Amino acid sequence: MMKFYRVDIEYDGTEFYGWQRQNNDQLRTVQGEIEKVLLKILKEKVKIHGSGRTDRGVHANGQVATFRAKSTIPGNRLKYAMNSFLPKDIFIKFSEEISEDFHARYSAKGKEYKYLLYCAADRSPLMDRYYGHTKLEIDFELMKQAALKIEGKHDFRAFMASGSSVNNTIREIHELKLEKKDSKIIMTIRGNGFLYNMVRIIMGTLVEISCGRKNIAVIETAYITGDRDILGFTATARGLYLQKVFYN
Amino acid sequence: MMKFYRVDIEYDGTEFYGWQRQNNDQLRTVQGEIEKVLLKILKEKVKIHGSGRTDRGVHANGQVATFRAKSTIPGNRLKYAMNSFLPKDIFIKFSEEISEDFHARYSAKGKEYKYLLYCAADRSPLMDRYYGHTKLEIDFELMKQAALKIEGKHDFRAFMASGSSVNNTIREIHELKLEKKDSKIIMTIRGNGFLYNMVRIIMGTLVEISCGRKNIAVIETAYITGDRDILGFTATARGLYLQKVFYN
Repeated sequence: MMKFYRVDIEYDGTEFYGWQRQNNDQLRTVQGEIEKVLLKILKEKVKIHGSGRTDRGVHANGQVATFRAKSTIPGNRLKYAMNSFLPKDIFIKFSEEISEDFHARYSAKGKEYKYLLYCAADRSPLMDRYYGHTKLEIDFELMKQAALKIEGKHDFRAFMASGSSVNNTIREIHELKLEKKDSKIIMTIRGNGFLYNMVRIIMGTLVEISCGRKNIAVIETAYITGDRDILGFTATARGLYLQKVFYN
Repeated sequence: MMKFYRVDIEYDGTEFYGWQRQNNDQLRTVQGEIEKVLLKILKEKVKIHGSGRTDRGVHANGQVATFRAKSTIPGNRLKYAMNSFLPKDIFIKFSEEISEDFHARYSAKGKEYKYLLYCAADRSPLMDRYYGHTKLEIDFELMKQAALKIEGKHDFRAFMASGSSVNNTIREIHELKLEKKDSKIIMTIRGNGFLYNMVRIIMGTLVEISCGRKNIAVIETAYITGDRDILGFTATARGLYLQKVFYN
């Protein structure tokens, strides 16, 4: 019987070359590992569709994937079958049967990412895996002011890794929340879509503005000129988490 | 010129077979890695003395070690020299010159450990490295009541891995603090000394009492009878952190 499934996935991105399966199957990817497990369970080559790719080193608390397969496994039981075979850096948090027209990527209405930043003069072995790190002196109030310039609907083409090509670079950021706890800054950003490297460039730009290296005005200039070079650095992947994907 | 040094060390214990150098140098240990770096910097075989061993998988925010060496490096500069050679899971947070009679272990007056526990039905790839995990339903108020029985001066011989031999098993716990944040419980325990596996057995016992598997009375019975078997399980190493060592 043909069934359609949705799975919600947590993973530690450290040991993966990103989400997307590589043609060269030598490289360990999240998609590749999950499809290997599905082959084992369903005795069938299944192609899964993620809500979007995550880069090498990026983590996820709530990646979503959908797929179709000939199967008799009930939706809510599938997670147990998968988890018993998955490696320890991937876990299926939730599984259900869905209707045929639901698609992890095309049905998505928005996403939420989190970025964890550790601010200290020294590096820290115990923070290294899950936090970006800056030695720069951050003015947190100034960072919050700059964040207000990111919220709203803008042409974010400057906030995109060079070489990427998309037709429409207009995105709407519904919320950019910043919290500070001791030497940690937590950014939570929610929007209707994100360009390649967009969250990491936003984080790097907020850091460089809040330490006085860049003027806050670069953000609005970048919306007009599309100039990547006036923005800040691309913050490291290991501080980034795909938190949630929103559907109707 | 003979100098005496103290170094304060942070490490991620995941990839080490504990603190102590093994005669078989095949096994990667924190002491072994640090001594290798000192040999490189000082061109001399140096033996370092830790405040105590940490087991395989246990982390440290504030391990302390002392050693003597022929050197001209000023105490406050040593950390930079060492950090430039150390692997990324070890970091020297502080270094100074000390007097000859200061010894990381024999001069220690007490220690503080932290245990991070994650309470949830499911395992979590992103918590796995730095948290112990329990699926048991914890009554946090009951856990705090049990913690009060641990504070004070007691004969902790039941709270010791079997097979260990020490003459004096009386220890004083100055404080056992428990905090709860969402599904995380943080135990901070400070005392004049700890037996082998003592913190992990305390944590396991608090878990089993707070979920109703053991009666709170087992703690006092264990002080009297010394019976290890009536206490809880030994909580996993990866939730444990050596936080601080206290000196006069």
